[in-house]
Amino acid sequence: MAEETGRVEAFSDGVFAVAMTLLVVDIKVPHDLPAGQSLAQALAKEWPTYLAFVTSYATILIMWVNHHRLFTHIGRWDDRLLFSNGMLLLGVVLVPFPTALVAEYLGLPGQTTAAMVYNGTFVVIAFCFNLLWKTASREGRLLRLDHDADAVRHITDSYRYGPLYYVATFVVGLFSVTTSLVLSLMLALYFALPSRAAAAIVPAGKSR
Amino acid sequence: MAEETGRVEAFSDGVFAVAMTLLVVDIKVPHDLPAGQSLAQALAKEWPTYLAFVTSYATILIMWVNHHRLFTHIGRWDDRLLFSNGMLLLGVVLVPFPTALVAEYLGLPGQTTAAMVYNGTFVVIAFCFNLLWKTASREGRLLRLDHDADAVRHITDSYRYGPLYYVATFVVGLFSVTTSLVLSLMLALYFALPSRAAAAIVPAGKSR
Amino acid sequence: MAEETGRVEAFSDGVFAVAMTLLVVDIKVPHDLPAGQSLAQALAKEWPTYLAFVTSYATILIMWVNHHRLFTHIGRWDDRLLFSNGMLLLGVVLVPFPTALVAEYLGLPGQTTAAMVYNGTFVVIAFCFNLLWKTASREGRLLRLDHDADAVRHITDSYRYGPLYYVATFVVGLFSVTTSLVLSLMLALYFALPSRAAAAIVPAGKSR
Amino acid sequence: MAEETGRVEAFSDGVFAVAMTLLVVDIKVPHDLPAGQSLAQALAKEWPTYLAFVTSYATILIMWVNHHRLFTHIGRWDDRLLFSNGMLLLGVVLVPFPTALVAEYLGLPGQTTAAMVYNGTFVVIAFCFNLLWKTASREGRLLRLDHDADAVRHITDSYRYGPLYYVATFVVGLFSVTTSLVLSLMLALYFALPSRAAAAIVPAGKSR
Repeated sequence: MAEETGRVEAFSDGVFAVAMTLLVVDIKVPHDLPAGQSLAQALAKEWPTYLAFVTSYATILIMWVNHHRLFTHIGRWDDRLLFSNGMLLLGVVLVPFPTALVAEYLGLPGQTTAAMVYNGTFVVIAFCFNLLWKTASREGRLLRLDHDADAVRHITDSYRYGPLYYVATFVVGLFSVTTSLVLSLMLALYFALPSRAAAAIVPAGKSR
Repeated sequence: MAEETGRVEAFSDGVFAVAMTLLVVDIKVPHDLPAGQSLAQALAKEWPTYLAFVTSYATILIMWVNHHRLFTHIGRWDDRLLFSNGMLLLGVVLVPFPTALVAEYLGLPGQTTAAMVYNGTFVVIAFCFNLLWKTASREGRLLRLDHDADAVRHITDSYRYGPLYYVATFVVGLFSVTTSLVLSLMLALYFALPSRAAAAIVPAGKSR
Repeated sequence: MAEETGRVEAFSDGVFAVAMTLLVVDIKVPHDLPAGQSLAQALAKEWPTYLAFVTSYATILIMWVNHHRLFTHIGRWDDRLLFSNGMLLLGVVLVPFPTALVAEYLGLPGQTTAAMVYNGTFVVIAFCFNLLWKTASREGRLLRLDHDADAVRHITDSYRYGPLYYVATFVVGLFSVTTSLVLSLMLALYFALPSRAAAAIVPAGKSR
Repeated sequence: MAEETGRVEAFSDGVFAVAMTLLVVDIKVPHDLPAGQSLAQALAKEWPTYLAFVTSYATILIMWVNHHRLFTHIGRWDDRLLFSNGMLLLGVVLVPFPTALVAEYLGLPGQTTAAMVYNGTFVVIAFCFNLLWKTASREGRLLRLDHDADAVRHITDSYRYGPLYYVATFVVGLFSVTTSLVLSLMLALYFALPSRAAAAIVPAGKSR
């Protein structure tokens, strides 16, 4: 009930690290080029694979940064934290699948289905991030005793409507796939930058 | 004989993390949809793969939580602990194989064989968890000096008949595959929740 | 803004470790030998795969040693460090792809394209190493308070022209693929040995 | 020159953990059983795969235990330690390949070649273990200040002829493949148990 979180973080780091590294196995060297096609052309044709790789990588990196940020405030663990963290990591390891799905079906008949899976995954992940943070921070139950109350409150505020934003993105995706993907990317960037956003909100002169 | 267990835990975390993340490589994007089949239909047809993924993930997560719980009481290591831990991890990395086997053969002629492999794996894992715990806790030989004696006794009690329960599940599987899978899942949940069970058993008012 | 870097290092170690280990999945046991071919011959024919494996492994190992060396001087982190480190790791996990590309196309029509991808990857990695180091060391913002000023200055000096050297290698590769690969290898060895080079530059009698 | 070895160990643990977990990807669920073949028969036919899996796993586990044991005495690192450790890990990640080779070709024409690759890999690994230990222990240069001199001397003694034993096994393999594999296994077990062997050698009454 009141142990250090070092091992939860090490285990999570392992999952993030493997998930990010496994992405590379989808990038294949082209074999047996068809006559008249240069290697450069063969590689260029694979651009959706590269785009999916970079997007998945950036998305998981942003989630790792967020996870890292949350755990700077969390100082203890209990079973509920272990399981909500485990559910979040399930979402993390899944990310490459919907990303590859969108990369393959964008512009084709299945694109709305692909966008539903993609945006749906992020609804679930946003929900899990919220669950993890509530498990840790409600009444400060698992926070470090010396946690920064301002930073904690800022995270709580910025997470409050997170799942809702992603649900809205999901709905948009039913009408315009591309718009929903852009929105999803913007949300990821928004959650990547809370501390700077926070810096803008917090009264000047306050050291953090 | 009396070193810290940090590196045993880090190594184990690595194995758990990789095992959980590798599960995702079995989830493939459907290529070359047959005429008249939508992407949604193609994905829906893959439900046994998704079920196997979620079951394997949850199973390994529960084992990680248990492993984490045991090591909060273990403070030292010797060669026997390293090898019994290594045997347990062998069981952990194997889990995806019997799970995929059951997902593929459930309802088909090979289903009893698949259930035997699945349930047999968990008999072995239960045995290894027991061996690890006995190696560490018998006469308190490798426990932390400040370990919680109540919690240790509770783990010892709940583990005592663990392998037996799984052997019983194995036998049930010879007659009814589905019943044995449900039993196996219930056992996993039971072992996922020892501390709450403990909380119900321990006299009220006792702080843990 | 001023936490320890332990988790950044653990996460990075995970990425490096997985990237180095994944290399082995490209080494396959030969099946179904054609009549009249011995196993030894079948293995010998695979020498480009083994060469690519050893080169990729050595390259990532050298990058890990450099990363390890940088972080002995870095004592704190902020968001910029997390993201520049994440970009560097993106380069690290990519290394096996251009290496396999060169191994497959060396001496064939696509070799200049392959060399461009290979050398281009290292331009990006050199740039990322520089960005990471600048993020950490400019005005000593994230360095340990007790960092070794001589060693820091030496790293800054040896990194200053790093990307430039790799750009030059890239240009050479447009004219002679083999020369550029040899140059690239020599650069890796040069960056593998900064502290000895430093030892030669630093005035004798100075303890480090 | 005098930092803690935590990160070297964490990185090595990552490599060991991934190498052991990756073994499982070679264990496949049988698809499309030929008519008249039961699942049990299809699985039984795969026994060389399972044997290779268990052998590789046990071998890497024993190497991890040895690595763990060495580093309980090593307290500092330098560049030479990082690179000799990196070379050892190269051997570790390679182990599954020669193991699979032997599993596939045992009893077939290529078996001597397979045994040469297998035994040759262990010659290299034994050499790397020796190099790592010499780098760390010669004149006690990287050992912990409070290292156990008896244990260190025992390791030095038992490692002295290690590579030689493996070279002898390699030579035996040119004449009898099976004998060499049994010898190789016995050597692994011998190196797995140094502390007990040590306990038998060290004068009674001496606490370790």
